[in-house]
Amino acid sequence: MRVAVVGANGKIGQQLVELLKNDAEHEAVALVRKEAQQKQWQEQDVEARLADLEGTVAQLADALAGVDAVAFTAGSGGNSGDDKTLLVDLDGAIKTMEAAQAQGIKRFVMLSAWQANNRENWADELKPYYAAKHYADRELMRSELDWTIVRPGALTDDNGTGRVDIGEHLPPGKIPREDVAHVLMGCLTTDDMIGKAFDVMSAD
Amino acid sequence: MRVAVVGANGKIGQQLVELLKNDAEHEAVALVRKEAQQKQWQEQDVEARLADLEGTVAQLADALAGVDAVAFTAGSGGNSGDDKTLLVDLDGAIKTMEAAQAQGIKRFVMLSAWQANNRENWADELKPYYAAKHYADRELMRSELDWTIVRPGALTDDNGTGRVDIGEHLPPGKIPREDVAHVLMGCLTTDDMIGKAFDVMSAD
Repeated sequence: MRVAVVGANGKIGQQLVELLKNDAEHEAVALVRKEAQQKQWQEQDVEARLADLEGTVAQLADALAGVDAVAFTAGSGGNSGDDKTLLVDLDGAIKTMEAAQAQGIKRFVMLSAWQANNRENWADELKPYYAAKHYADRELMRSELDWTIVRPGALTDDNGTGRVDIGEHLPPGKIPREDVAHVLMGCLTTDDMIGKAFDVMSAD
Repeated sequence: MRVAVVGANGKIGQQLVELLKNDAEHEAVALVRKEAQQKQWQEQDVEARLADLEGTVAQLADALAGVDAVAFTAGSGGNSGDDKTLLVDLDGAIKTMEAAQAQGIKRFVMLSAWQANNRENWADELKPYYAAKHYADRELMRSELDWTIVRPGALTDDNGTGRVDIGEHLPPGKIPREDVAHVLMGCLTTDDMIGKAFDVMSAD
């Protein structure tokens, strides 16, 4: 399976590309915003394409040509303003869904955030971000795509442990990005995960 | 018909409340954010209730108790940040839809913006605002509500002319807020407008 990783320059996106690259049955197509990032992946023998989430659906569809699945790991990030939260985390994500559908791609795995589905659990300072993720997830669940929504807790750069809890409503907690990348990989390669949305945390 | 006007302190909201107040067949319930605004309406013999679009769906549902229709005319406004665009224009609007449904209210008229439905017509500097309006409108169209979506052009404080063009895709233009308030009033009182979304501009 050829998997387009949207946001392949992000910390989780990078690890997911590596996992795909090292798996004989799969192939990564790294989607990045900048030419320097594209070059970095190409130097590691990874196919890399430019894709701007603020571009048009048609441009995003071009970037998805020939792939079998999409993993959306992009985020505007904590250092940009809420204009980018609206244009990247909300509109960019949904344009990517529309682009996938335009290409006839069915499988779509979304990196979301813990309890993005429940407004009452949104921390005050993160509410705008959560609102964007919430409505992107809602659009995905109503689409014709074969979706999976992964909602990790607070992300850390710790080494992965390979032990995670998943559930519809977990208590708040942490999880290493490495473990999140493995969960995304597992979702991409398991049809059982289609149509499921869940929190994921480190297990004891 | 008792119509809740959400955003009754806004320029269009105020005019819609006046139209409802002066119509023998209808009654306005002005929803406002601040007690001083509530008092102003009460001094004019208009029922006014406090409603915070950043509150919960349950709180918004309380504010909609006993009304027959909702006109959503609220907006975070150009002077607030895009955090409020996400929390008011997007999440606040959709929470109001959910609150209306929780109260068994069917009729819902949304004040949107010219071509909010077409990304290619979003002016660069207004893109975040348009994204919020776009997805609020999409949620409304997919809801069980009897919706109408009114998408006016650039709003002016000129006197209304009573002459407007409506259409699925009009060229850009202007329209006095007074005319927009009359269009919203017409939508509320005409079942023919249920399930319709349209641009509206001043006609020659």
